[in-house]
Amino acid sequence: MFTPRAIGFVRSPYTDTKSIPKGLGAKHDAEGVLEILPEFELGLTDVEGFSHLFVIWTFDRSEGFELIGSPPFDERPHGVFSTRSPRRPNPIALTVVELLSREGRLLRVRGVDMLDGTPILDIKPYMSSIPAEKIRRGWLAEAEARTHK
Amino acid sequence: MFTPRAIGFVRSPYTDTKSIPKGLGAKHDAEGVLEILPEFELGLTDVEGFSHLFVIWTFDRSEGFELIGSPPFDERPHGVFSTRSPRRPNPIALTVVELLSREGRLLRVRGVDMLDGTPILDIKPYMSSIPAEKIRRGWLAEAEARTHK
Repeated sequence: MFTPRAIGFVRSPYTDTKSIPKGLGAKHDAEGVLEILPEFELGLTDVEGFSHLFVIWTFDRSEGFELIGSPPFDERPHGVFSTRSPRRPNPIALTVVELLSREGRLLRVRGVDMLDGTPILDIKPYMSSIPAEKIRRGWLAEAEARTHK
Repeated sequence: MFTPRAIGFVRSPYTDTKSIPKGLGAKHDAEGVLEILPEFELGLTDVEGFSHLFVIWTFDRSEGFELIGSPPFDERPHGVFSTRSPRRPNPIALTVVELLSREGRLLRVRGVDMLDGTPILDIKPYMSSIPAEKIRRGWLAEAEARTHK
């Protein structure tokens, strides 16, 4: 296996996990900056042509993992691979952000849900999406339906 | 940083990279199985309610990285963070698959583009997508336009 290394760090308005919007209908429209390390800047070539990016990052302030647990907004327990819980066997996270602008090695983005200072592992272009009508969302849709009653 | 570990392995029809469909308009509808290790099976609880999953895996047969390079279907070079190149600073890959069925710790899926035996790092539910009309795809769209001329 490889040894993960940071390619950069997130600058985010969130300094503690409590301040990050969570749960059903949470809006993720906070702006932040993906600050890529100088030695990786060349890898950003042409990235500004994409409207959205996948950001792969680490839950660097999470410890251990739980295979089953309850998300903050649903009292029912779910398997870790059915949730976005930070307590995963590999503490890897994925966020889709909208790319607002690029200035050199700084990417200004909308949609950050990371803590300030979070290490970034990778950035990938968002090339296509599953049409909304084809997506089934299991326990999440059920929890939403219960909430809206 | 954490030490990555496999939570399972991909069973795929592809045994060498040449056989994996690549390039503009490549269809990824091959079926395969995500075989999760017994000790992580509990983490799959409720996963069957989701139609699509993010699979995070490693390019375990790729070595080193290249910050800029030409994809197989475009002679122009692009930054690694603007492509899906396997030669990345962190050899982490991301594939969206359709979940066809679950039998215990085996997930039968459509859309694999991994080699047989590839280590899986994480599985996450696909919860929402960016509407197609909001996605800009930079160099990829330009390359497609040139091809269709």
